[in-house]
Amino acid sequence: MTQASLFAGLSAFPLTPANASGKVETDALQTLVARGVAAGVDSICVMGSTGIYAYLTRAERRRAIDAAVSVAGSTPILAGIGALRSDEAIALARDAQEAGARGLLLAPMSYTPLTQDEVFEHFQSVASATNLPLCIYNNPSTTHFQFSLPLLRRLADIPTIVALKNPEPAQGSIAEELALLRTNLAAPFTLGYSGDWCAARALLAGADSWFSVVAGLFPVPALAMARAAQAGETDRVMQIDAQFAPLWALFKDFASLRVIYAAANLLALTDAQPPRPILPVPQEHTARLKAAIAPLVDWTAPWKTA
Amino acid sequence: MTQASLFAGLSAFPLTPANASGKVETDALQTLVARGVAAGVDSICVMGSTGIYAYLTRAERRRAIDAAVSVAGSTPILAGIGALRSDEAIALARDAQEAGARGLLLAPMSYTPLTQDEVFEHFQSVASATNLPLCIYNNPSTTHFQFSLPLLRRLADIPTIVALKNPEPAQGSIAEELALLRTNLAAPFTLGYSGDWCAARALLAGADSWFSVVAGLFPVPALAMARAAQAGETDRVMQIDAQFAPLWALFKDFASLRVIYAAANLLALTDAQPPRPILPVPQEHTARLKAAIAPLVDWTAPWKTA
Repeated sequence: MTQASLFAGLSAFPLTPANASGKVETDALQTLVARGVAAGVDSICVMGSTGIYAYLTRAERRRAIDAAVSVAGSTPILAGIGALRSDEAIALARDAQEAGARGLLLAPMSYTPLTQDEVFEHFQSVASATNLPLCIYNNPSTTHFQFSLPLLRRLADIPTIVALKNPEPAQGSIAEELALLRTNLAAPFTLGYSGDWCAARALLAGADSWFSVVAGLFPVPALAMARAAQAGETDRVMQIDAQFAPLWALFKDFASLRVIYAAANLLALTDAQPPRPILPVPQEHTARLKAAIAPLVDWTAPWKTA
Repeated sequence: MTQASLFAGLSAFPLTPANASGKVETDALQTLVARGVAAGVDSICVMGSTGIYAYLTRAERRRAIDAAVSVAGSTPILAGIGALRSDEAIALARDAQEAGARGLLLAPMSYTPLTQDEVFEHFQSVASATNLPLCIYNNPSTTHFQFSLPLLRRLADIPTIVALKNPEPAQGSIAEELALLRTNLAAPFTLGYSGDWCAARALLAGADSWFSVVAGLFPVPALAMARAAQAGETDRVMQIDAQFAPLWALFKDFASLRVIYAAANLLALTDAQPPRPILPVPQEHTARLKAAIAPLVDWTAPWKTA
């Protein structure tokens, strides 16, 4: 496996179950990781945005990686190492390497708005702190930072920076964006998408990866869609995507983080709630949520008896 | 002094000098606080945005408040207690009270975008954790949260929430905004502005307070402007504001945080830099910065020999 291909295919992003004080519930996390491993996802990334990296202490983040690695077998564990301070992100990168993570995911988390040069130096210092491959986590809705194309080119020249996780483009098609990025970022460089509702389009347009929140909870149907896309089975992709559609609608209404916690609660996989101030999906939407996950639960029926 | 009037007048927001690891340099902080006290500012708020609250640990934030309180005499020390987690903000509020802070400043810091209800519950839980008066810190450029008018009305009904710190309005005049807010928020409620470049306009329009970054470093001319405004001396206000104008231009070009660190370095008050990834103002702008602060330094000449 090349460094870049570590981030290719379906990467599952489970939530990180934690109690109200931010202590990670490692048993519940391991259950989620084991579901992904058994389904055969290509990698599992702990502490993405849904994995509440921004809300956990360094010690708890280390505990979460340790717990995930211990049940992952040969499935690569990736770890989100975003932090407001560069020294903290560097420490988190080293922790992740020590804990056995195989790759890093770095978002340009900000409070004071950052310049392009500041984000370059931040990524350079963090990417140089370990020899693990690193994926740029581009998520302006949470980081409020916009990567320019020149910045991406500079970052892609850093040896350990090998992948980009993009959101659905605000303008233009995913195919157009991929063509632009492939022209500008020297191969091998893995280009993938998050925002589960655009995954079918992204994969069919030739994206290398789907960085998936839903695969953190429903890895079997997510993997079925990813594999159908990799095989070029457009009709099959669209059929599976249609089964996810009611969930995508909920993601757009309440944000995927709130919805996936509520779904995990309904499946009795954890009773963890999002960290306050983030509130759960209001109770009156439970029937809608149950209906949205019903086809996915049936699909993963083997897990119900596991 | 009523609870609301605690936040009235000129509130100085010093930077928090800290080393590259985020350890607060309490001697340098005390020098900055003592300058404000000697000048006679109405309050001093440690750990505003320029006071890098978002980049310091709970322990360092406590050290900073302790240090400030110990040199503040009768000048009220206010403390920023923003945090991504509600339980953390509550702990910070209690720490601030224990350390002798007289009021709290709370920004709706976010990573996952927050709803109006989430911010209400966040503020309610934090405002209920102590009996200190609390000022709502509205700063969408860093928090990425927009307070609706209904939310402000709900918050103003919470007994300990007594003030609002607003940025320059994106649309309309400050006078129009103040009129709207005074109609909607039951008196006594203190309405003040940050964004130093709009301070003259805000004060002349009848704002109760100027929450001032520049007063954290140059309290004497800032206080002169505030007192002239309170006395209705429009010409004098505009004369003083004109002396600040080159600094306001730098604030707009590089953000006030970067500029005020560079100015403090030039004054040899601290050699602390902004926390990485935030970079200093590039060296090539030093001459411009020196020229901008020259009239303010002369104004504060007594301090140069202190």
